[in-house]
Amino acid sequence: MEELKRLVREEGQNLGNGILKVDGFINHQIDPLLMRRAGEELARRFAGKGVTKIFTAEISGIAPALAAGLALEVPVVFARKRKPVTMTEPVYVESAPSHTKGVEVLLMASPEYLKPEDRILVVDDFLASGHTLAALVRLVEKAHATLVGIGVLIEKEFEGGREALSTLDVPIESLVTIAAMEDDRIILAE
Amino acid sequence: MEELKRLVREEGQNLGNGILKVDGFINHQIDPLLMRRAGEELARRFAGKGVTKIFTAEISGIAPALAAGLALEVPVVFARKRKPVTMTEPVYVESAPSHTKGVEVLLMASPEYLKPEDRILVVDDFLASGHTLAALVRLVEKAHATLVGIGVLIEKEFEGGREALSTLDVPIESLVTIAAMEDDRIILAE
Repeated sequence: MEELKRLVREEGQNLGNGILKVDGFINHQIDPLLMRRAGEELARRFAGKGVTKIFTAEISGIAPALAAGLALEVPVVFARKRKPVTMTEPVYVESAPSHTKGVEVLLMASPEYLKPEDRILVVDDFLASGHTLAALVRLVEKAHATLVGIGVLIEKEFEGGREALSTLDVPIESLVTIAAMEDDRIILAE
Repeated sequence: MEELKRLVREEGQNLGNGILKVDGFINHQIDPLLMRRAGEELARRFAGKGVTKIFTAEISGIAPALAAGLALEVPVVFARKRKPVTMTEPVYVESAPSHTKGVEVLLMASPEYLKPEDRILVVDDFLASGHTLAALVRLVEKAHATLVGIGVLIEKEFEGGREALSTLDVPIESLVTIAAMEDDRIILAE
């Protein structure tokens, strides 16, 4: 997706320690038209897979998941990191270490919205170490639903997440792949 | 918006203490097509106001804000409740008491994305006491931007938020207005 590649290359900021700031179009401000096109591209890559639901994690996963859900015309479920008062138990709970937060993050989802008959596409903004995505996949497994693939906006190849998720044996698609971040250069994979 | 009214009436659950559970289509699972139509309806109500940006609060505000941003073709900014590592200072910070969480919630926004020339439509999932929306409006004021209106999916009229926000002297639009919640009945305003 050339448009997103250009934005990452030109507007992405390397904050050091593997952290990429893309607050201008993903993590604080969102360009809805760009996000819609990203959702359409993810939908195109998973067309014919029989996806019945998109599953993501709050917070920054919501926009790309919603865009993919719009394009595939299926519901979106976002795992909660804190249990809101409206979330009635029982819930499925998993945890993942967060590189950017330096803590263990909980991810909760209700059995009401993840069902054994669901064919689930997991979507998130980033694929980095893969810890958050792996926790989402474990929630899918707890619900006895079928994982059909993983789609992200930006992959940081050098953090090894794709390798860590390879045993899942599902397609993993990223719209932009970053090979390396060196000082103020964001180097994309071919 | 008849479709959303029907869902609130038929699928909304009164959890007591003024708390409405709409996890099946707003707060945990989202229907992207319904959300798109809600965004189009909000856009219709604020057409001609020269909106340049949508401003909301994470988490559940993101979906309706993105839908409104899609329809109005303007960027969406979501205030952060916790400062991510990518959020570089200086930031604007406000706080609001949260009825459903029982604590004071921080709302942060970067001056990079709220500018004096912006004409801002504040969007959220709920208008209840109005505390969160008032904090978003204070952030708009800190940025010296212009507030052009407030749009929400669901208003809980009996919590008095509209009254609390009336001094702002901008249009406040809600797609569904709940007059009262009595046991398992959700009573909509006419």
